[in-house]
Amino acid sequence: MDIQHIATLVRETKGIITNREMVAHVREKGVADYVTQVDITVQEFLKDALYKLAPDIQFLGEETGLQQMNTDSYWILDPVDGTTNLMHDYQHSVVSLALCQRNEIVAGIIYDPFHEELFSAVKGEGSFLNGKPIHVSSAQKLSETIIGVGTAKREQAKDNFARFLRVYENSQDIRRIGSAALELAYTACGRQGGYFEAYLNPWDYAAGMLIVLEAGGTVSDWRGKNLDPAQGSQVAGTNGNVHDELLRLLA
Amino acid sequence: MDIQHIATLVRETKGIITNREMVAHVREKGVADYVTQVDITVQEFLKDALYKLAPDIQFLGEETGLQQMNTDSYWILDPVDGTTNLMHDYQHSVVSLALCQRNEIVAGIIYDPFHEELFSAVKGEGSFLNGKPIHVSSAQKLSETIIGVGTAKREQAKDNFARFLRVYENSQDIRRIGSAALELAYTACGRQGGYFEAYLNPWDYAAGMLIVLEAGGTVSDWRGKNLDPAQGSQVAGTNGNVHDELLRLLA
Repeated sequence: MDIQHIATLVRETKGIITNREMVAHVREKGVADYVTQVDITVQEFLKDALYKLAPDIQFLGEETGLQQMNTDSYWILDPVDGTTNLMHDYQHSVVSLALCQRNEIVAGIIYDPFHEELFSAVKGEGSFLNGKPIHVSSAQKLSETIIGVGTAKREQAKDNFARFLRVYENSQDIRRIGSAALELAYTACGRQGGYFEAYLNPWDYAAGMLIVLEAGGTVSDWRGKNLDPAQGSQVAGTNGNVHDELLRLLA
Repeated sequence: MDIQHIATLVRETKGIITNREMVAHVREKGVADYVTQVDITVQEFLKDALYKLAPDIQFLGEETGLQQMNTDSYWILDPVDGTTNLMHDYQHSVVSLALCQRNEIVAGIIYDPFHEELFSAVKGEGSFLNGKPIHVSSAQKLSETIIGVGTAKREQAKDNFARFLRVYENSQDIRRIGSAALELAYTACGRQGGYFEAYLNPWDYAAGMLIVLEAGGTVSDWRGKNLDPAQGSQVAGTNGNVHDELLRLLA
């Protein structure tokens, strides 16, 4: 599997995601329909392209839902991570694509077409941003870094915001960019010391998890356990150094 | 005063802000010194350039602090808004420059060199992003939009995060990008319905205030009063439609 070739295919989605005929479309059919159309178009384009490349590999994604895959290898695709951002033209939405083999993520790509940044990793070979090696931040403590937060699980908002406050009080500040995959990508390249969210589906975190790990970081659930790429979970991804300190604040 | 000409000058700071010799510099002198250097270099460049353009206009900024200006006209400059972001290479820092005449902001520029976006406004002439007219979002209620939040006043963190929760519960979601000026710029071009922070200095909000107003939005303190460009204040900037609903949640 040639990651460069796959990266080239993923970059071809730029036109679909950023070619914003929003105003006309939204006036006619509403913003939710616009975002759905972008989502479907990216998905169909990548499914077609990847099928030509490897006709035997199936897909797991929002469309299929969580399910037991009966094959050794499958793609995990989120055609647009950060759909609320896309709705508001917030310009921070990405494509997230991972390859899972024998229950292990072996390749991951996160592509931000708004800023032309493509994060990628192959297991054992390190992580890259537009082809250049990236590494997690060197912060030793939360007090030396900023932390991205996610608001999943609206019914747990009160607990979530209490956690945000605790993390804020123990770090330099929090950030919230509205795309789980992008939060993990930013963690991988050292822009923030870590990120956490109360629930993510595999298509939200699969690529980002490998990219953080291969950049030298740590990804786990909030109790420190490894994530199962076939299941949704709490997620914490950090530079490794601040992982335990962060998990203590989330408990 | 030709805003296009000033915009061209401001764009020339890109090399200073994004030419990241971070690794070498930080290893030698630390990250705080690096950011201070960028700040000073941008400020000196713009002071020089604007002095040549208008030798009689003085400056108000972080360097001078809040003070009574004894002239009719003065520049209000924040050479780097989003310094914590710059420290971490988070890539969301901007230059914010405003012109104040007789206690009123008459021109404003916010320049994001990482994404090559320049927001500008002249009083009475509308707001622009890279020369194209921009407008605030058309959301009628908080439940139709996302809201940016600021964490100023660390000693009031508990109250701030209680406000964030209330706003989250009444809107689609919150965002936090870490630059007050950029939050106002994003509000002006409709990427979010509004933004609020418990304290900003004039150099943080002066340009952004005019850009939001000229894009059709509303900017005030949390009680709905106009801001005084010579004073620090609580700030809320919105598309206008959601202003009162937001202020009620901040009380």
